[in-house]
Amino acid sequence: MTHKIAVLGASGYTGAELVRLIATHPEFEIAALSADRKAGMEMSEVFPFLRHLRLPRLQKIEEIDFDTIDLAFCALPHATSQEVIAALPRDLRIVDLSADFRLREAAAYQKWYGKPHAAPEIQAEAVYGLTEFYRDEIRSARLVAGTGCNAATGQYAIRPLIEAGVIDLDTIVIDLKAGVSGAGRSLKESLLHAELSEGTHSYSAGGTHRHLGEFDQEFTKAAGRPVMVQFTPHLLPMNRGILATVYVKGDPRAVHRALAERYAPETFLEVLPFGALPSTRDVRGSNFVHIGVVGDRIPGRAVVVAVLDNLTKGSSGQAIQNANLMLGAEETAGLMLAPVFP
Amino acid sequence: MTHKIAVLGASGYTGAELVRLIATHPEFEIAALSADRKAGMEMSEVFPFLRHLRLPRLQKIEEIDFDTIDLAFCALPHATSQEVIAALPRDLRIVDLSADFRLREAAAYQKWYGKPHAAPEIQAEAVYGLTEFYRDEIRSARLVAGTGCNAATGQYAIRPLIEAGVIDLDTIVIDLKAGVSGAGRSLKESLLHAELSEGTHSYSAGGTHRHLGEFDQEFTKAAGRPVMVQFTPHLLPMNRGILATVYVKGDPRAVHRALAERYAPETFLEVLPFGALPSTRDVRGSNFVHIGVVGDRIPGRAVVVAVLDNLTKGSSGQAIQNANLMLGAEETAGLMLAPVFP
Amino acid sequence: MTHKIAVLGASGYTGAELVRLIATHPEFEIAALSADRKAGMEMSEVFPFLRHLRLPRLQKIEEIDFDTIDLAFCALPHATSQEVIAALPRDLRIVDLSADFRLREAAAYQKWYGKPHAAPEIQAEAVYGLTEFYRDEIRSARLVAGTGCNAATGQYAIRPLIEAGVIDLDTIVIDLKAGVSGAGRSLKESLLHAELSEGTHSYSAGGTHRHLGEFDQEFTKAAGRPVMVQFTPHLLPMNRGILATVYVKGDPRAVHRALAERYAPETFLEVLPFGALPSTRDVRGSNFVHIGVVGDRIPGRAVVVAVLDNLTKGSSGQAIQNANLMLGAEETAGLMLAPVFP
Amino acid sequence: MTHKIAVLGASGYTGAELVRLIATHPEFEIAALSADRKAGMEMSEVFPFLRHLRLPRLQKIEEIDFDTIDLAFCALPHATSQEVIAALPRDLRIVDLSADFRLREAAAYQKWYGKPHAAPEIQAEAVYGLTEFYRDEIRSARLVAGTGCNAATGQYAIRPLIEAGVIDLDTIVIDLKAGVSGAGRSLKESLLHAELSEGTHSYSAGGTHRHLGEFDQEFTKAAGRPVMVQFTPHLLPMNRGILATVYVKGDPRAVHRALAERYAPETFLEVLPFGALPSTRDVRGSNFVHIGVVGDRIPGRAVVVAVLDNLTKGSSGQAIQNANLMLGAEETAGLMLAPVFP
Repeated sequence: MTHKIAVLGASGYTGAELVRLIATHPEFEIAALSADRKAGMEMSEVFPFLRHLRLPRLQKIEEIDFDTIDLAFCALPHATSQEVIAALPRDLRIVDLSADFRLREAAAYQKWYGKPHAAPEIQAEAVYGLTEFYRDEIRSARLVAGTGCNAATGQYAIRPLIEAGVIDLDTIVIDLKAGVSGAGRSLKESLLHAELSEGTHSYSAGGTHRHLGEFDQEFTKAAGRPVMVQFTPHLLPMNRGILATVYVKGDPRAVHRALAERYAPETFLEVLPFGALPSTRDVRGSNFVHIGVVGDRIPGRAVVVAVLDNLTKGSSGQAIQNANLMLGAEETAGLMLAPVFP
Repeated sequence: MTHKIAVLGASGYTGAELVRLIATHPEFEIAALSADRKAGMEMSEVFPFLRHLRLPRLQKIEEIDFDTIDLAFCALPHATSQEVIAALPRDLRIVDLSADFRLREAAAYQKWYGKPHAAPEIQAEAVYGLTEFYRDEIRSARLVAGTGCNAATGQYAIRPLIEAGVIDLDTIVIDLKAGVSGAGRSLKESLLHAELSEGTHSYSAGGTHRHLGEFDQEFTKAAGRPVMVQFTPHLLPMNRGILATVYVKGDPRAVHRALAERYAPETFLEVLPFGALPSTRDVRGSNFVHIGVVGDRIPGRAVVVAVLDNLTKGSSGQAIQNANLMLGAEETAGLMLAPVFP
Repeated sequence: MTHKIAVLGASGYTGAELVRLIATHPEFEIAALSADRKAGMEMSEVFPFLRHLRLPRLQKIEEIDFDTIDLAFCALPHATSQEVIAALPRDLRIVDLSADFRLREAAAYQKWYGKPHAAPEIQAEAVYGLTEFYRDEIRSARLVAGTGCNAATGQYAIRPLIEAGVIDLDTIVIDLKAGVSGAGRSLKESLLHAELSEGTHSYSAGGTHRHLGEFDQEFTKAAGRPVMVQFTPHLLPMNRGILATVYVKGDPRAVHRALAERYAPETFLEVLPFGALPSTRDVRGSNFVHIGVVGDRIPGRAVVVAVLDNLTKGSSGQAIQNANLMLGAEETAGLMLAPVFP
Repeated sequence: MTHKIAVLGASGYTGAELVRLIATHPEFEIAALSADRKAGMEMSEVFPFLRHLRLPRLQKIEEIDFDTIDLAFCALPHATSQEVIAALPRDLRIVDLSADFRLREAAAYQKWYGKPHAAPEIQAEAVYGLTEFYRDEIRSARLVAGTGCNAATGQYAIRPLIEAGVIDLDTIVIDLKAGVSGAGRSLKESLLHAELSEGTHSYSAGGTHRHLGEFDQEFTKAAGRPVMVQFTPHLLPMNRGILATVYVKGDPRAVHRALAERYAPETFLEVLPFGALPSTRDVRGSNFVHIGVVGDRIPGRAVVVAVLDNLTKGSSGQAIQNANLMLGAEETAGLMLAPVFP
């Protein structure tokens, strides 16, 4: 069975990654692509790497006939997304890749994004897209909000530990290293090759990164009481990949066991043997997550390291995984591509 | 229909790339993996990026039961390959990725590789693996010799021009830029990150690179008279990708037309509009070749630029394309993966 | 003796490189820094790597008292430069790093830059800044026009060969590989890390790159008759460095000898032993040029490979070398910094 | 005044960095270079980036006449160093860059390096080379033990906080990101460009990295009671640079003040304004350290981020700084080179 798919915002990296993955998806067919300022262009002009595909020409969103669309991926910038989605048919299945529908509380949205939400009634409808933890809700959802890529990485490392009650909840530290494609295709001096290559720096340190809104919401929900983590992201000279180093207090073996047991049935989550450490290179271009656990020399402390590809499992791959559930397809359809190494 | 595949020499980059591609091939199943020094190990220990796959344990070649194998890929080092293949069953279908069977003339082999061939009778049997130019022979071949990755790139740019008679044969210059994975996983100081990143250099300049043996053989065959090109390879700080800049004397429009017409029916060869230039980024991880042509300001001179991924279309993807033909599968089976960008 | 220096356009890469080099120059002192849009800021805000230096605050050009300035480096964008310089005091010594005064003929400027020159009378006064070939004129010049970085690299490889009459003048091909800092700090999608890293492409192929204006002017002057070269630049995923691979017809040993003899007295030009090939890594951050020569297997053809750092010898280092001559300082003052490797 | 310098182990990265820095040092002259396996070669053969220098030929150590040497830098591998130094004249001034003399206690050495020290009587004599904290002892020392590059980075961030008593001593976490040159020029698969570029991973996690021996020794000394930190290093795809993200409990403003006051008189230590974060790019190739402090949203927690260049301030630059003190030269002599950016 073939599902007709629209990708809104196809001229950014997550849009292109959606098209890349759908290109070999057995049940999805791209029926419409939008890009506001580039409407009228061929996708191969915007992304020459896709020139072997026969794709519809880029359109403005208002030109798309959504009656023929089974599901729309919305890969638009934050803030734009909520306005666009509010104007789409109310029965259209949507997977949104922006930050706009991740936070369930209007107050939380206002706090982290600095202004009131433009479509609070739709926000209430959205299901948080961390597939392995919201699978049933996603299956029946109309609107799924893709997680932040950093937020996904940290949650995969920590969430089962909270659920299993094996760590102290007040001393969690997430030190995160992220590749540059997570910042998108935007024109900023700090994203130029000459500025970024051959070096590293931290940013949004001290508790100001917006993905903390997701950590707060989800860890608090999982724990049944407020949980606030420390979180410091760093930008690395690589295009894809996120590595989260998580410092927790708890028995290292119990930490490892909680992760291994929780993820044993999950296709995309690989927990390494105790003591082994993952590399972002080993998941590049794929929907897999690798997680390692080591014990510290100080008893009662453990380090959990999780890696994923921010464009795949961190956004577009996750989005397709959710769309598979929403459309009744095999959850892993189109997502079993092996990582690309080297 | 499922074909049982053996990969000999699975611990190098081309071996790993074969496994990556076969992982989503609809008709191939990996039945045996060999790695001499790493026999007994799991593939996921050697290449953690493949740990989501259920693969046979690494064996020594002599432990493999070739009666159960439909086709063997031989991704062994040069010189080793000819010895191993000489000892394999004579009716086993083989795609060799080494340099050992590329040169049809024993004298040519001796000249470029510095010693006599160890299996000249098998050499005579081998078909040169540049699929689009040897398709019929490959279909019925028992042994196909994969081309050099540089040799493939240069030939895709030039061969149709010789066949169409649109360029001068005595002034062809190939200036080639190659990523580092082409040098394999060998321990050389010059391949260390600290030596290679953030810089470039040429090597084997002046007509000493072994892939010239292939250029001489194939261009002379295509032209029906001796053709010798100039060829300077350069090593670039990137993992995958080859870009060949080819300087030819001939009418630029005729050059473009010859390429566009020759490759119009080919799935993996994309000739860009006249004046457009390709990038290695746009074929990374894929089996596609992009080719561009521009005219020089000096009348009667053209520049042809061809790009491919050395590990895919330059070796392992090409090998699978050839294996598809040999086994009666769809030629493109398992090879339609879109490039990975960024 | 201390010379008071102004750097106009200090917020770009060549401006910052000037400040880096002047920081340890024994006779230069930075008296003024300009940056139009960033006037009022500290240099350490624009370039934190310079924060250990005590530097004047960024100003608008019109705020600078040029009576106190011995020499001004003008590191402004093309086209802006000619307007600014036309308005500066007519007795102020200037080294211009833009393209505005490189071409002596007004017609040539119009041809390559697409519009008439705004200050043709000053253009007539400018001396071309390829130090080793214009040393005497530079010593007495008021205005020196820094060369293009690509143009410098190609000329160092070829100019002595024309002067010595050892190569054919009608078949010169320059295939050039350049790092990204040469494109400056401008906000272009194509200069983002995610677009540029891990790949390569050619640009301005076919005789359209503006540095051809310099090649034409200088090679024609050196030869005493028109010389037109073929020139294809490529962008590489590295920040600093240019490598020019030059294909010439001529006796390889004579080619090597012409270069070795011409550059024997030059401090910054190192001709490698015959057959050895240079690497951009070996000149990074320095004012040195390394040149290698190999003979091709086809008799009568040679390959010359030259490398330099585009920001140092290709622009800011060259500029200081010229300023040293103009101010009567030691030519090498402040420029003997060793390359930075790795 | 000119001091005659020997560099033992000149064929590694720290040896080459010593030569690079000494090349423009006003009072040091390289009188001897050793490299055991490469004895007889010119330095320019081993490191072509140094070919503009007139340097002594590489020798075996036993061929050096140490009577003519004022100070020897010992840039040999760990374990080798202690044997070589034990055999050198007992009155020769030495700065050792290996790990061999960093740990004062024989038991600590045995614990972290897995075997007894071969020259315990010399070990007792060695002064720990963290210049800003051992300046007086270094001035009169015969043997100075250069610090680990990671150990230096962490100590610059933390030591003044312990001395000022502004942080909790039992919850310090150091998450460190290091470039690859710190691993040296050794032939390991994991250091190949194809393995290392475009990704990141942690290593020696959980309290097994040997630089913990230094942290334990020095922090315990500074605190006057046992201090054990958590320490997780990560390898990044960049050649130079270390960034340490340090998580501490304490008042953020007090933390910033303690660092700013402690380092106010120090030439090479730059404490950024409160809230600003440093980048490794801004110290590349230089002897400078940049340190930033931010407060976390959780009251009473601060994040300190310190960056330095592992080859310069982390080893060879530090070594020269110490040698300057030992020889009565200006402490900053030869070390005021500005960082190289981009």
